[in-house]
Amino acid sequence: MKIAFAIDSFKGSLSSMEAGNAAAEGARRVFPRAECVVRPLADGGEGTVEALAAGLGGELRTVSVVGPVGRPTVATYGVVGETAVMEMAQAAGITLVSGAERNPLHTTTFGVGEMIRDAIARGCRRFIVGIGGSATNDGGAGMLQALGFRLLDAAGRDIPRGGAGLASLAAIDRSAALPSLAGCEFRVACDVTNPLCGERGASAVFGPQKGASPEMVATLDAALSHFASVSGGDPHFPGAGAAGGLGFAFRTFLGGELKSGVEIVLDETHLADALGDADIVVTGEGRLDAQTVMGKAPIGVARLAKRFGRKVIAFSGCVSPDAGVVNEHGIDAFFPILRQVTTLDEALDKDMAAANLAATAEQVFRCFRLGAH
Amino acid sequence: MKIAFAIDSFKGSLSSMEAGNAAAEGARRVFPRAECVVRPLADGGEGTVEALAAGLGGELRTVSVVGPVGRPTVATYGVVGETAVMEMAQAAGITLVSGAERNPLHTTTFGVGEMIRDAIARGCRRFIVGIGGSATNDGGAGMLQALGFRLLDAAGRDIPRGGAGLASLAAIDRSAALPSLAGCEFRVACDVTNPLCGERGASAVFGPQKGASPEMVATLDAALSHFASVSGGDPHFPGAGAAGGLGFAFRTFLGGELKSGVEIVLDETHLADALGDADIVVTGEGRLDAQTVMGKAPIGVARLAKRFGRKVIAFSGCVSPDAGVVNEHGIDAFFPILRQVTTLDEALDKDMAAANLAATAEQVFRCFRLGAH
Repeated sequence: MKIAFAIDSFKGSLSSMEAGNAAAEGARRVFPRAECVVRPLADGGEGTVEALAAGLGGELRTVSVVGPVGRPTVATYGVVGETAVMEMAQAAGITLVSGAERNPLHTTTFGVGEMIRDAIARGCRRFIVGIGGSATNDGGAGMLQALGFRLLDAAGRDIPRGGAGLASLAAIDRSAALPSLAGCEFRVACDVTNPLCGERGASAVFGPQKGASPEMVATLDAALSHFASVSGGDPHFPGAGAAGGLGFAFRTFLGGELKSGVEIVLDETHLADALGDADIVVTGEGRLDAQTVMGKAPIGVARLAKRFGRKVIAFSGCVSPDAGVVNEHGIDAFFPILRQVTTLDEALDKDMAAANLAATAEQVFRCFRLGAH
Repeated sequence: MKIAFAIDSFKGSLSSMEAGNAAAEGARRVFPRAECVVRPLADGGEGTVEALAAGLGGELRTVSVVGPVGRPTVATYGVVGETAVMEMAQAAGITLVSGAERNPLHTTTFGVGEMIRDAIARGCRRFIVGIGGSATNDGGAGMLQALGFRLLDAAGRDIPRGGAGLASLAAIDRSAALPSLAGCEFRVACDVTNPLCGERGASAVFGPQKGASPEMVATLDAALSHFASVSGGDPHFPGAGAAGGLGFAFRTFLGGELKSGVEIVLDETHLADALGDADIVVTGEGRLDAQTVMGKAPIGVARLAKRFGRKVIAFSGCVSPDAGVVNEHGIDAFFPILRQVTTLDEALDKDMAAANLAATAEQVFRCFRLGAH
């Protein structure tokens, strides 16, 4: 018997590998001789770096970079062989900016470029970059500047950092960009399909939550449009507008491929190899609800598993009343791990959550065995 | 496919039949053509009357009786055909007495006798009486008095009600007892094995929680011992000391048979007939923990089911960390029905609990089916 585990982190509680290992412990209590394969799972967002670094035998690195409002910040990324796993939010995330500081005219992705540069210096040539949770609307200009691209105004001076600065962009000098970039491959985890500009563009849709007034939205939208025309890139492809236009920069300047975060992670962890001959596939995440079917990680696992005709069981910290819909998307049965009435703090306690997950998995596998005999 | 349901009430939330029906609803979502048989389950304590009345097509009756401290109280009992289902606590329970009023020298089971008399007048001849939760220590003397037995002092006067009055008992006149009692059968649900008197007797063990000081315990123990010798009954049999000696009176004067509450209920509901050919037996209770294996209702169901080699699944409002031991006592797998972090009040809400139980059962049966195919 073989059981494959790929569970997304229970945010604020268990990491992906902790969750997978706890569920595997519960399974082994029922099937002591089962082969349990635990793989990391993430969706490109929070927890992706930790999941892939821990689950693929990599390590974490930290680097001091320029944060979104210019203050230095320490960014953490993962290194697995020559692959770097990054979350843009570590260097330019909205949580690094106080409410009063939110001003997407000036916030910059410069730190993202610095993080990439640091990884290149350490030998990384493959990049997985999650680009959710940005505080920026600069089209990725800051990242490009940090990587050596020169964004110049009509007088040949570097334009100021931030989305507003792009209005004065006259030319882009790619010759000064880090030479190693030519040998680098970028896979960008992106779960939105917005174009760079216009009504559905970065500024209009995501600008306000980063602090943009209607006037700022107009200014930024025009600046990004101008950036696209100067650069010659395609502002219309799905995801160009992700993370304030960072998606646009990755594809236009770095040859980056934008894909769903789950797909990149499933690829990178070779989950297909692990579940192809598994009798049961176990997945899950902190909360299962109707949103889960909108491309979240457990559904990615379930779809992959169903391609191989596998049975899929999911565990979660909690489930909402509308979660039943996941049964129609490949998750054969799902179970919350709550055992008693508790406060949220108690439920999130790492030891408690791991014990509850193992105990729940044990009973679920007992039930599975009951059906089999 | 046939599934038999017998779930104890989730105290403060779902009645036994509500729980059984909710679980059956969840099962039918997975096995729409399964034959689902829902039987009531109770342990002789709180919820027994409601479970048997509702589950066996009976009805509830109310009668005004003398409460344990003399105040009138309205007692509810169930009638199923010619069987009456009663809880002594309805007429003489500790919850009917305020803290200041607790005085087992004087509290009486008179109301219990009135309840029985009322049921006899309505044609009942079979009695199931749960005797937990008493406020009394009168050896059942009050019940006997209400049924017409005359408990007389040396001067031929009725002794006062309450345990202390038994000290002056000189003779018992059985000739005035209700004639119909001769045709009545009493089964007494009793889960304690204490004798009437002595260190393990009613007064010493249960007296203090009913308000007895050490002096009162001595007085009451002597009074009960005197009662036993005047009546000629056996004060040593297991359960004689239950409910302040009410067990003694039932057996000595009414030919009552003391049995575990679960066994009586399993008998009365003919559960063996229902589960003999069931593919799965579903049980449960409000809380599953290590105590559950000490003769509580779900374990009674599990033992019976295992005699027929059936598969047993349990549901509960919550489970404690030590609940795993129930797996060694016939419950193959068990599942709490909590779906989200909630307050206790929310968790106890009847609609919420029924929905959670149905949703949990649905996923559990999906898992069971997954094992089977």
